[in-house]
Amino acid sequence: MQIFVNDPDFIVEDMLKGFTAAHPEVMLSTLNDHVVTLRDKQEKVGVITGGGSGHEPAFLGYIGEGMLDAVAIGEVFASPPAQAFLDAMIEADNGYGVACLFGNYAGDNMNVKMAIQMAEDEDIEVKYVVATDDIASSPKETREKRHGIAGGYFMWKIGGAKAASGGTLTEVIEVAQKVVDRTRSICVGVKPCAIPAVGTPNFLIESGTLEFGIGHHGETGIEKQALGSAKEIAIEMTEAILTDFDFDGNKQLAVMISGLGSTMLMEQYVVCGQVLATLREKGHQVEKVYVGNFVTSLDMGGMSLTIVDLDAEITQLLDADGQAVGLKNY
Amino acid sequence: MQIFVNDPDFIVEDMLKGFTAAHPEVMLSTLNDHVVTLRDKQEKVGVITGGGSGHEPAFLGYIGEGMLDAVAIGEVFASPPAQAFLDAMIEADNGYGVACLFGNYAGDNMNVKMAIQMAEDEDIEVKYVVATDDIASSPKETREKRHGIAGGYFMWKIGGAKAASGGTLTEVIEVAQKVVDRTRSICVGVKPCAIPAVGTPNFLIESGTLEFGIGHHGETGIEKQALGSAKEIAIEMTEAILTDFDFDGNKQLAVMISGLGSTMLMEQYVVCGQVLATLREKGHQVEKVYVGNFVTSLDMGGMSLTIVDLDAEITQLLDADGQAVGLKNY
Repeated sequence: MQIFVNDPDFIVEDMLKGFTAAHPEVMLSTLNDHVVTLRDKQEKVGVITGGGSGHEPAFLGYIGEGMLDAVAIGEVFASPPAQAFLDAMIEADNGYGVACLFGNYAGDNMNVKMAIQMAEDEDIEVKYVVATDDIASSPKETREKRHGIAGGYFMWKIGGAKAASGGTLTEVIEVAQKVVDRTRSICVGVKPCAIPAVGTPNFLIESGTLEFGIGHHGETGIEKQALGSAKEIAIEMTEAILTDFDFDGNKQLAVMISGLGSTMLMEQYVVCGQVLATLREKGHQVEKVYVGNFVTSLDMGGMSLTIVDLDAEITQLLDADGQAVGLKNY
Repeated sequence: MQIFVNDPDFIVEDMLKGFTAAHPEVMLSTLNDHVVTLRDKQEKVGVITGGGSGHEPAFLGYIGEGMLDAVAIGEVFASPPAQAFLDAMIEADNGYGVACLFGNYAGDNMNVKMAIQMAEDEDIEVKYVVATDDIASSPKETREKRHGIAGGYFMWKIGGAKAASGGTLTEVIEVAQKVVDRTRSICVGVKPCAIPAVGTPNFLIESGTLEFGIGHHGETGIEKQALGSAKEIAIEMTEAILTDFDFDGNKQLAVMISGLGSTMLMEQYVVCGQVLATLREKGHQVEKVYVGNFVTSLDMGGMSLTIVDLDAEITQLLDADGQAVGLKNY
């Protein structure tokens, strides 16, 4: 593989060394070397997440004041064990309880729920919200089975901002659940990714084709298609999300384009321009736009589109100060 | 090519449509559809740059309050014409003169100098600074011939912050030149990039090898090497820069790792960790760390390391508020 790595089996550990050395606001937990935590403890509800590695800057990059307090780090594309989620809960708890805001995958679900039981024995109150924004991963009738992808960003930002403003655990959970309910994403892939310890792609995308609805670990999408123009792809992604929302009237929206790893920012802006044009043609107002690599899939080629149906509270919390250490490095 | 594009010959125009639609703080110039400018004119020295596309978020992403006022946009890997630089100067001028802070490439150099002559006829005073941070592109004795790569970020940030604080044109130029003189970069490549309108890589990097010192358009580096471990590469990059600096004693430094396009953030943090460890072992203090895709080369695999020898003034200006619209999108 043409990548920068020491022992591929320890790429996550080496990344964590670099991440904590680069960002003095965070540190490895003294409880668990696969938990990263803010150095300064905050007098507020703790907010955590966790998940497999390979999605950087998610999840660890979203630690910061007004965002996440601690993150449980899994190996590449593998859930962190229950103990790591528990240790992240212990790090984030300051007596106000902990909101665990994570993406819906089987392993994470199982391990978070086990960790919550273990946290009870430590007298830590934990409630959780599960991001289910990926509309390709299950039909609308079984929306609770959908996976969480880049839309998770909004759950973390809103939950983190609510906690920072002094919200109770119940209030943090309620507003995080509200934004999850108002968030939809769709992902398209044009190049596979390779897990460093394997060295070759674990799936293929044929040249000249696109996987509409591909998952963030290469899960089979809705449809293999001929690779169309950026305009065609942007319109199809936008309409898939609008159909799923089935809005009654014009809305105020936030839009996020997230590159999957090797897709150029130039391409992301090309698609973004068409998404915004399509939404505006249909009468919607786009209030906030995010373009960049927010939740990736190793070096996969492709991007996700996320749309959030804003309300006044969500807009206000999106505008709140928040210092995600993996984004605010300038 | 497995990319998101309409007509590859118009990928830059499509990107500009998306960029200006996504970021309401900026707009296409009414003078020139290859110039992007801040919407709100500032009562201060204007600060501009320009260059070929394919290096996003550079250059247009660094427009913003406290950073750049206008940018001339070239086609992919091609300098903008003199007229575009001139129109950026006209957009940025508010009677206080314009600082043109650009990277040292033959085409940009020629076109900026022609534009400065044209600006004289418009009674706009323009002075310039040329970034020459890429130590691989010319020996130390001919440092003025070196190219500008990711180190340009510091020139833009420092020059922009000085202008925002009310500095005169001479003061902006002096401090931008000072930071250029105190900045060194080295780049390594492991995968070639392809210009969208061509469709195939315009150079090759053999599997199992690394190009030490490769340029941001695939210019031949110092040496083709067997691809070593991340640790070996990080140490070699760090030592190449330290040798070029030839410091007398321990220093306070800023460090930037910039991915070239398809190199994962995970890899960037792995290398960053070793760079920081090496610098600290040698007794230097690292005050600020930047990790991410700051100046890219389309979808090239690789990364650059930049080190800045800080002083009190540079540190203060680095900490000044600055809203680069292409970074501050969260």
